[in-house]
Amino acid sequence: MFEKLTIIAPGLLGASIAMAAKERKIANDVSVWARREETRRQLDSKDWCDAAPDTIEAACKDSECIILCAPVERIIDLAKQIAPELNSNPIVTDVGSVKSKIVRESSYALKDTARFVGSHPMAGSEKTGMENADAGLFDGRTCFVTPFENTDEIAADKIATFWQALGSIVLRETPEKHDEIVSKVSHLPHILASALASYLLADQSNAKDTCGNGLKDTTRVAAGDPALWKEIIVQNREEILRSLSDFQDRLQLYYSAIANEDYLEIMKRLNEGKAFRDALD
Amino acid sequence: MFEKLTIIAPGLLGASIAMAAKERKIANDVSVWARREETRRQLDSKDWCDAAPDTIEAACKDSECIILCAPVERIIDLAKQIAPELNSNPIVTDVGSVKSKIVRESSYALKDTARFVGSHPMAGSEKTGMENADAGLFDGRTCFVTPFENTDEIAADKIATFWQALGSIVLRETPEKHDEIVSKVSHLPHILASALASYLLADQSNAKDTCGNGLKDTTRVAAGDPALWKEIIVQNREEILRSLSDFQDRLQLYYSAIANEDYLEIMKRLNEGKAFRDALD
Repeated sequence: MFEKLTIIAPGLLGASIAMAAKERKIANDVSVWARREETRRQLDSKDWCDAAPDTIEAACKDSECIILCAPVERIIDLAKQIAPELNSNPIVTDVGSVKSKIVRESSYALKDTARFVGSHPMAGSEKTGMENADAGLFDGRTCFVTPFENTDEIAADKIATFWQALGSIVLRETPEKHDEIVSKVSHLPHILASALASYLLADQSNAKDTCGNGLKDTTRVAAGDPALWKEIIVQNREEILRSLSDFQDRLQLYYSAIANEDYLEIMKRLNEGKAFRDALD
Repeated sequence: MFEKLTIIAPGLLGASIAMAAKERKIANDVSVWARREETRRQLDSKDWCDAAPDTIEAACKDSECIILCAPVERIIDLAKQIAPELNSNPIVTDVGSVKSKIVRESSYALKDTARFVGSHPMAGSEKTGMENADAGLFDGRTCFVTPFENTDEIAADKIATFWQALGSIVLRETPEKHDEIVSKVSHLPHILASALASYLLADQSNAKDTCGNGLKDTTRVAAGDPALWKEIIVQNREEILRSLSDFQDRLQLYYSAIANEDYLEIMKRLNEGKAFRDALD
């Protein structure tokens, strides 16, 4: 599909993309660039990495597709950094969990030398790092592709095809609609899990003994990297505040129903919750 | 350990206790009583059930240990129903998720003919019913045993030993302390999962496509039986309201920090949440 594919910043997602691209023969030459020299030396011994040059320019040279896999706060800077060096009008994409700002600013930075298309594979995990990479990470998982009015249609189609080739189910949404959706199905659940875990830290310090699997499930995502999640909150602040406020109203409905012993209302809400959850499986 | 063990109302928990007790040779004769005749006929063919008499009196006759496995709202009535029939001064216990009211009222109802000890094996599941029973259900799981000032010490020790023999890790707490703990580590998480799922039902009806594993984990318990959870809320209403109100304050801390762009506070809270969750594994 691509003669040369470039992965910038190989963490869990970048390394998993490289593995999957080699395994599924989606790219002939997978070049990977990491900022730290120690990581570049590790890359030399990976069979899913054909080249690990010292400079980002060399990794991007003659590439057909460049994937920026850094944390969300570094993606726009990387787009600006590579823009003047590109010689092959590549498609550039990213894997950030928030899209509006990244897509608009990266598209602008790259407008003269590349075609930017935003992506968001929903295949993260509370585990991070190259050492947890897995060629099957994207199999059956949703990947958003988020074109907007300035996006090259052919590039967007090609990126969608690329994620499908990695096993993903592709959903196309505008960056703004994407950010609204993930604020509800991903960022809000993360904040709730974190708030619950942080609430319990103080007076349920022996919760390891007293909790069932329910608490473990409900709080699982709270183990995610705080620095990464702080940046997601920074980038999607307004949508998150809207979703969180709406959720607080919903939770107050439960509180009032319990306080008022309105058990018909409680049954109604518990049934709604069950209906939603049953439909996810 | 017991010559005769009686299970009343064999759902997921009751049937799993019977299976485990036979497999681990904890009881010679496991008698089971179900209210519905159809269920009693099914019991006849189960190798973990030695007898399935038509009357609750026959099932309890000469028993050393009787376990009331009905939903929380029926346990006290069952204790009152069997009290006049008991001929062997048995230990009676239950598996209800809320303890204060059940322990005090059941102990009183049974004071002349039996010795009541409250139990709460934290081994429920969003799956229910005899057909999902599993002899390994209690293995490595916490079981509360909740004696209070009127509880027979020897009976409490014997029930603790019984749950340990089934593979459980036993924690002793007063009924009141138990109810406070579970309001935080079980009932509050359930309400949050349900409120999140019920909130998303309206405008994220295609969440099956857009959600990652995070949302599935965070909302998993919301699939639990609404009628069962309504009764838990009825029985532990005051502790649940206290925990829910405290949690709402905590969630408002997150909201304010995000609204005020106080990212030091957000990092602090995300780190607290991670510390708690990491300690659960």
